[in-house]
Amino acid sequence: MAEFFNVLAPDSALQTLIERMPRYLEAEMVPTSQALGRITAEPIVALESLPAFVRSTMDGYAVRASDTFGASESLPAYLDVAGEVPMGQASAITLAAGQAAIAYTGGMLADGADAVVMVENTQQIDATSIEVFRPVAPGENVVQIGEDVRCGEPILSEGSLIRPQDIGGLLALGMTQVRVRRSPLVAIVSTGDEIVAPEAAPGPGQIRDINTYTIAALVQQAGGIPVPLGLIPDDYEAQRQAAVDGLSQADMLVSSAGSSVSSRDMTVDVLDSLGSPGVLVHGIAHRPGKPTIIALVDGKPAFGLPGNPVSAMIVFRLLVRPTLYALAGCLQPPQAPMVRARLTRNIASITGREDHVQVRLFEAEGGLQAEPIFGKSNLIYTLIRAAGIVVVPLDQSGLYAGEEVPVQLYH
Amino acid sequence: MAEFFNVLAPDSALQTLIERMPRYLEAEMVPTSQALGRITAEPIVALESLPAFVRSTMDGYAVRASDTFGASESLPAYLDVAGEVPMGQASAITLAAGQAAIAYTGGMLADGADAVVMVENTQQIDATSIEVFRPVAPGENVVQIGEDVRCGEPILSEGSLIRPQDIGGLLALGMTQVRVRRSPLVAIVSTGDEIVAPEAAPGPGQIRDINTYTIAALVQQAGGIPVPLGLIPDDYEAQRQAAVDGLSQADMLVSSAGSSVSSRDMTVDVLDSLGSPGVLVHGIAHRPGKPTIIALVDGKPAFGLPGNPVSAMIVFRLLVRPTLYALAGCLQPPQAPMVRARLTRNIASITGREDHVQVRLFEAEGGLQAEPIFGKSNLIYTLIRAAGIVVVPLDQSGLYAGEEVPVQLYH
Repeated sequence: MAEFFNVLAPDSALQTLIERMPRYLEAEMVPTSQALGRITAEPIVALESLPAFVRSTMDGYAVRASDTFGASESLPAYLDVAGEVPMGQASAITLAAGQAAIAYTGGMLADGADAVVMVENTQQIDATSIEVFRPVAPGENVVQIGEDVRCGEPILSEGSLIRPQDIGGLLALGMTQVRVRRSPLVAIVSTGDEIVAPEAAPGPGQIRDINTYTIAALVQQAGGIPVPLGLIPDDYEAQRQAAVDGLSQADMLVSSAGSSVSSRDMTVDVLDSLGSPGVLVHGIAHRPGKPTIIALVDGKPAFGLPGNPVSAMIVFRLLVRPTLYALAGCLQPPQAPMVRARLTRNIASITGREDHVQVRLFEAEGGLQAEPIFGKSNLIYTLIRAAGIVVVPLDQSGLYAGEEVPVQLYH
Repeated sequence: MAEFFNVLAPDSALQTLIERMPRYLEAEMVPTSQALGRITAEPIVALESLPAFVRSTMDGYAVRASDTFGASESLPAYLDVAGEVPMGQASAITLAAGQAAIAYTGGMLADGADAVVMVENTQQIDATSIEVFRPVAPGENVVQIGEDVRCGEPILSEGSLIRPQDIGGLLALGMTQVRVRRSPLVAIVSTGDEIVAPEAAPGPGQIRDINTYTIAALVQQAGGIPVPLGLIPDDYEAQRQAAVDGLSQADMLVSSAGSSVSSRDMTVDVLDSLGSPGVLVHGIAHRPGKPTIIALVDGKPAFGLPGNPVSAMIVFRLLVRPTLYALAGCLQPPQAPMVRARLTRNIASITGREDHVQVRLFEAEGGLQAEPIFGKSNLIYTLIRAAGIVVVPLDQSGLYAGEEVPVQLYH
């Protein structure tokens, strides 16, 4: 065991791992239209200006602004209509003094024009002339070349999570491919002699495996690709072999240990036997995540989550999810949706430990209320009945009924 | 035009559509492990109790609680160890008075036991006897049959969005298949004579299509399946044919019209020509979404979004996304992540109109600050530089600098 920090604060535990992870995943080119949720592998710079031509932002008439100066309802400017610039076409018109050209929203300005008069501020006199009732300033109702984005301007930094609008922004510039990090592969192992597959009928003393599937879903939500390795008995050699297999196929290993002390100890021994530096963190100052194990195995992160599905899921969100994003170079993962609510009851904790307490939400007089769900933390259905969690920070010994607190919503 | 409500409030516009939508999408059975993000098509009830046997929540000794009454450090209770109940196996032991059985976290209790003493509160005397230093009450450190969920208890209501923990909850009960709504197919049409494909080099006056792709990504995020129909010129017959094709293949049509008034009028005419009742809403009391068109065509919703990509995306989130969820029977779609921040500048609006104003976020003295991004709303890169939007509600004429306001984060 290269380093062994007993019971680190969750943030320090995460930092301990992330600082030692040697590299990001490889980059690959993907079609921009398929890049939703991927992480950019390099800073991206505009290679063109947008718009590439001077565009009208209104339906109306392209004009030389100076021709409209002083125009009013009582003393309109009279302009000759030299023609129109159709949508999607170059201007074939060059305005002389006293001339206007029909312009459409998004269309190119006629040559010589420097502003657009809204159609509402004009009156057609005959087929070739109009009155203008209000003056426009140069540049009014016009988007200049490069006003949206300039050639050479940075548009996305490395490690950005690609959103729908980013796809639009890249395609607007003709960037139909984008360099992103490979999606992380996550090997998932569930261990425990009492666990059977979900389709099996459990015998007396047996329960169905759910961690494999909830963890797979959480991995998917975080942009990873789950690689489930199945159920492994509480046997050192079998577990070690599964972990070796997992790490050879994947970029990260997530194992949920059996819940007994001996089973957890076996997970520590397995994770520490696989490569360098081995186990970094054994135990975090967190309820219900205390028995968490974090290892780094020849550059690949490996987690031993508590076997209890509730703790496993809470620790996944707390530590595994940010590690998955960090592997792809994204150090600020998207946050959970958050609401503020008033606690209905005190929550006791102890200073030096971060508590994640599940809450139900309901509306009442005084606004949204958060009711802590206490009791046995290993009841799966608390996760289903709860709306999210309230965090009691490390430096507080509890929270008081009536306090307004942020609630991280499950999603 | 069966009904024509001019400039409805956004909420009323949405209600007008949703109330008239005749039915949800069909149901289908899918493997529970693949059901992340799907919507349940029926209320789901537990068909078993969980746990199915009395389980220990600690490592220690299963006992008859009465045998420990009065036990203390100075006067421990002496118990004979009758054996152990291994993980995943039925108990082969029946405790007599004065007996204990080794118990593991998550394991089955020995017959006759009604509580578990934590190993920390015991001392082994020899291979077959222990001292117990603290009494336990009946039921202590034990989960009873059905304590997590009871057979017959409702677990998910119809229209629930399936989260990772719901997958776990269903599988824990052996429900390896789940009845969900079919994922909605969304036909996407972009129109405009000035628009070329993203891989093309735009000529003078032309721009690249981005709405097809940002809308496809937004559809995916909302659990739908995009069916892009390509670029359609500003021609009534071509647009009508595309809309007919789209609605024959898909459950919803989203078209983004050209930005000129004539192009928008054409979209209204097309959407109104396709079936009954036709256009329901033409214009919403919203900036920048005013020119939005909502139709219902023989039971299928059809949207005409503003051609400007910024407005199109804002209106998608406001109206199309909740409609997609409603099609699948989910009337409370997941909310956008939200933060609170102080406005750096006043935002002017008018009473009776809801404004969505993009903001940048930055940290400063006094906490998170939201800086409104004003100016031309059709600049695509405002969507990329902004962190999210601030809403000026319908009944307010603006927001003041220094006010703390909720910011809906883009995601």
